[in-house]
Amino acid sequence: MVQKLSADARKAFFDNHPAWSPADGKDAAETKLQFSDFNEAWGFMSRVAIYADKHDHHPEWFNVYNRVEITLTTHDADGLSERDVAMAGFIDALRP
Amino acid sequence: MVQKLSADARKAFFDNHPAWSPADGKDAAETKLQFSDFNEAWGFMSRVAIYADKHDHHPEWFNVYNRVEITLTTHDADGLSERDVAMAGFIDALRP
Repeated sequence: MVQKLSADARKAFFDNHPAWSPADGKDAAETKLQFSDFNEAWGFMSRVAIYADKHDHHPEWFNVYNRVEITLTTHDADGLSERDVAMAGFIDALRP
Repeated sequence: MVQKLSADARKAFFDNHPAWSPADGKDAAETKLQFSDFNEAWGFMSRVAIYADKHDHHPEWFNVYNRVEITLTTHDADGLSERDVAMAGFIDALRP
């Protein structure tokens, strides 16, 4: 069973990942990315998709053309967990 | 310049594509799909992505795990056009 982040770890996550912000109404983290075009956005999403299925941890995400909006949370933990911290780090490394 | 569907063509589209419904507040069509798992959902999305970029007509879509929600509209036509009818047909052919 994955544990929810402690209050300190949650604060450290948002302090250390300035592109992410707390979601309204749930213990989750949101970000937005913008690419040059759909080809680039889809390439990014494909890399995240492979990571997600390998780690059995899947984002909620929205895409239209070159824009991608992502919400991370861990249903098993009823909030943010280390799985989200790891995925956010992976995503930030791909940020254009 | 792509033309918006006529009122008759719009009605025919929704009559002939029962999995699609008019969106609230804009001239667009929405649908939801559910797959066995993320692998299947992503396979579907990948096929639509290739179609979309080939036809330079991109969906608005949301995914979490095995669920996909899609909104189609044509910005250049300020509403539904034949491009959306064609994409909806492509999507319906892949529906599980």
